[in-house]
Amino acid sequence: MFKKILIANRGEIAVRIIRTCKELGIKTVAVYSTADKDSLPVFLADEAICIGSERPAASYLNIPAIISAAEVSGADAIHPGYGFLSENPGFAEVCRACGVEFIGPSSETMVAMGDKAQARAIAQKAGIPVVPGSEAMKDPAKVLEFARKIGFPVLVKAAHGGGGRGMRVVETEEGAEETIRTAMTEAEAAFGNGEVYVEKLILNPRHIEIQLIADKYGNVTIFGERECSLQRRHQKVLEESPSPFVDETLREKLYEAARKLALAIKYEGAGTVEFLVDKDKNFYFIEMNTRIQVEHPVSEMVTGKDLIALQIKAAEGEKLEMADPKLNGHAIEFRINAEDYKRNFRPSPGKIEKLLLPGGFGVRIDTHVYEGYSIPPYYDSLIAKLIVHGETREETIIRGKRALSEFFIEGNLKTTIPFHLKLVEDEDFVKGNLDTKILEDKILDKIVSN
Amino acid sequence: MFKKILIANRGEIAVRIIRTCKELGIKTVAVYSTADKDSLPVFLADEAICIGSERPAASYLNIPAIISAAEVSGADAIHPGYGFLSENPGFAEVCRACGVEFIGPSSETMVAMGDKAQARAIAQKAGIPVVPGSEAMKDPAKVLEFARKIGFPVLVKAAHGGGGRGMRVVETEEGAEETIRTAMTEAEAAFGNGEVYVEKLILNPRHIEIQLIADKYGNVTIFGERECSLQRRHQKVLEESPSPFVDETLREKLYEAARKLALAIKYEGAGTVEFLVDKDKNFYFIEMNTRIQVEHPVSEMVTGKDLIALQIKAAEGEKLEMADPKLNGHAIEFRINAEDYKRNFRPSPGKIEKLLLPGGFGVRIDTHVYEGYSIPPYYDSLIAKLIVHGETREETIIRGKRALSEFFIEGNLKTTIPFHLKLVEDEDFVKGNLDTKILEDKILDKIVSN
Repeated sequence: MFKKILIANRGEIAVRIIRTCKELGIKTVAVYSTADKDSLPVFLADEAICIGSERPAASYLNIPAIISAAEVSGADAIHPGYGFLSENPGFAEVCRACGVEFIGPSSETMVAMGDKAQARAIAQKAGIPVVPGSEAMKDPAKVLEFARKIGFPVLVKAAHGGGGRGMRVVETEEGAEETIRTAMTEAEAAFGNGEVYVEKLILNPRHIEIQLIADKYGNVTIFGERECSLQRRHQKVLEESPSPFVDETLREKLYEAARKLALAIKYEGAGTVEFLVDKDKNFYFIEMNTRIQVEHPVSEMVTGKDLIALQIKAAEGEKLEMADPKLNGHAIEFRINAEDYKRNFRPSPGKIEKLLLPGGFGVRIDTHVYEGYSIPPYYDSLIAKLIVHGETREETIIRGKRALSEFFIEGNLKTTIPFHLKLVEDEDFVKGNLDTKILEDKILDKIVSN
Repeated sequence: MFKKILIANRGEIAVRIIRTCKELGIKTVAVYSTADKDSLPVFLADEAICIGSERPAASYLNIPAIISAAEVSGADAIHPGYGFLSENPGFAEVCRACGVEFIGPSSETMVAMGDKAQARAIAQKAGIPVVPGSEAMKDPAKVLEFARKIGFPVLVKAAHGGGGRGMRVVETEEGAEETIRTAMTEAEAAFGNGEVYVEKLILNPRHIEIQLIADKYGNVTIFGERECSLQRRHQKVLEESPSPFVDETLREKLYEAARKLALAIKYEGAGTVEFLVDKDKNFYFIEMNTRIQVEHPVSEMVTGKDLIALQIKAAEGEKLEMADPKLNGHAIEFRINAEDYKRNFRPSPGKIEKLLLPGGFGVRIDTHVYEGYSIPPYYDSLIAKLIVHGETREETIIRGKRALSEFFIEGNLKTTIPFHLKLVEDEDFVKGNLDTKILEDKILDKIVSN
């Protein structure tokens, strides 16, 4: 059992981890940059150690300073949170070499999953669907044959160059060979080599991910899926569980695929297996995150399980034999960022002069900010996560609207609260009509212009 | 459907009601005394109307001012909250006479349940156990016979006077007749009449109550029991659900008794049936509260149901046909009062200079206070309800401890947070070894002195 955990992170996730450590009776060490000396983790942790100046490279990415802090404080484990060093296998290795447990999987697993091509190959070998694609080919008939095999629509891409030249979407078999030949001619002209490869075109995919925790003995528990399709520049803005699109059949398949991957790589700890899902409910592995994620609370709300506690227990070597929890109701997380959504979401740090957090039935707040707090400009702009829980998705959206409407922040900063207040009114959102492009292609313009 | 509800109350319950109204799409009117002009309900409601000066009699008990506010604002219903006018049948009648729905049962039901003797008689007639007692009797042999019938220990009390004279506890049958004769002689000497009556002595009872909501069509739904034994001067200090003492058999019996009473009096709305339960799990009806209670959130946490929403729907005439919800996990409510527990819990209002509310997984806060808020001295001292939820009672206590420890209030006031931090460590509390006397008889001294 760990006696003392050092949290190599900042902000809300540091607060989140401290809370669970307190409940587990584990002492905590907060490390902080000079910019974070007045931060809530510093106030809440049992000990706090300054590890460097504002810039992440000088503090939250400063491995020697963090290791020293662990040694000085006598911490027996390090929780890396998300971001910063959380997916750095070298850091995990250094921790363990120094006799401090890194709360996460082995560095070999981190290396394997960190390399997207390798991760894809491992998944494929384990029998998990990946976005189907061919090798480079120069015979149009062979290309067509492959396209037929994986099914239309497909994307034909030049094998030896990019920038859109030699690239064609082939919607159906009709006229396919001609389109392929055109692409090849174009590739030949542009890159001096007509070879192309074919990839399945996933139209308007959803981003759906599976949360799992694996102990050291091959027990993998799944904590439901998360719908994370609402993204802007590949950044999630709102997540929910369960996905309004996933039925029991698909859920079972996703669970099975995630479990297969975790077992194939002898995974340990908390991890997330991410999939693209097309409108026909075909799914394709894209990557695995070997850490806790920002959006883990929605899974906690619908399963009733403290995922950070289980992550720590897994790292302690506890046997976690349990059935996959049933999903109870619906949960949505709104990421509240200090950003000006009307100016392209540009960061808007500042001092919080007045703060009223929402509360009451079905409302959870994870935050590190308080009244009088100045948001430092050096780190990401997440200032709070508002998580709402209800019996149905409809009820949860209504609760989210209510909670957002009473969330009051005053000061020389802007937040994404007004953005979310409009998002929850959006017809496509309300219908659960989501994909990874819809926010940028359709919803955002409506929100910004109105 | 109501379009606008006036909340004839203040403090956290006014905030609580506003939140649900927002979720139901119902406009709200806050009424407030001059002392409450900067209060959170005034800020959160759609409209706010001042109804008088500080003293409750001039404002929150000022029926004409409240009715005027309802008429001026066009409210079609009034929610009375708890306390103040919530159990005043006259107020309910005036509301309805003015064409404004009173959110609560009929005034006849309120009258009947407000008169404790009548309530007891109604319960008895409906076949619900009440604390057994006799008529006044003058034959010692008859008294003994009755005592035998209801079982020892019993309390023999002078029928025509009080103050402890002519009162005796009769523990067992041995020597009983002699003790009865002594009581009668004493009663004769003190009051000129030796008549006594006998009452069953409930030793170290628990206070366990049943939450129900009844629609206008005879559907009564039960939302679990609440354990409210921890009391000081008959004021509850902490409540939980489920009770650590109630097993499935007892739960079924309590549900049945509560439902029987509700049906017998054609109850409508949210109500609570209170019982004393002895160590052998015999239970006795004591009274029914015809309103929402302070401690309703623990039932919400374990049932997943918004009781205020259901209460409003019942008043709107909606049919509420549903199975009694299963109880999911465990919930505890800590009443955070502005009181100095080391000085006999005397009120300690003041200005909140710094406030950090607990948050995170399994934590709910219902409060009307904020940083910079001055607690007015005119009303009760409840400033926040901290409600924690977990899978087991043990986990919930640990979570409560964690949340209490991060609950930070600074200013010229004292709160009961340190009291609760000690209470959750108490051996009897941890074991669930509770009765209505244990706090005052045993736990309090230990907490105050250490």
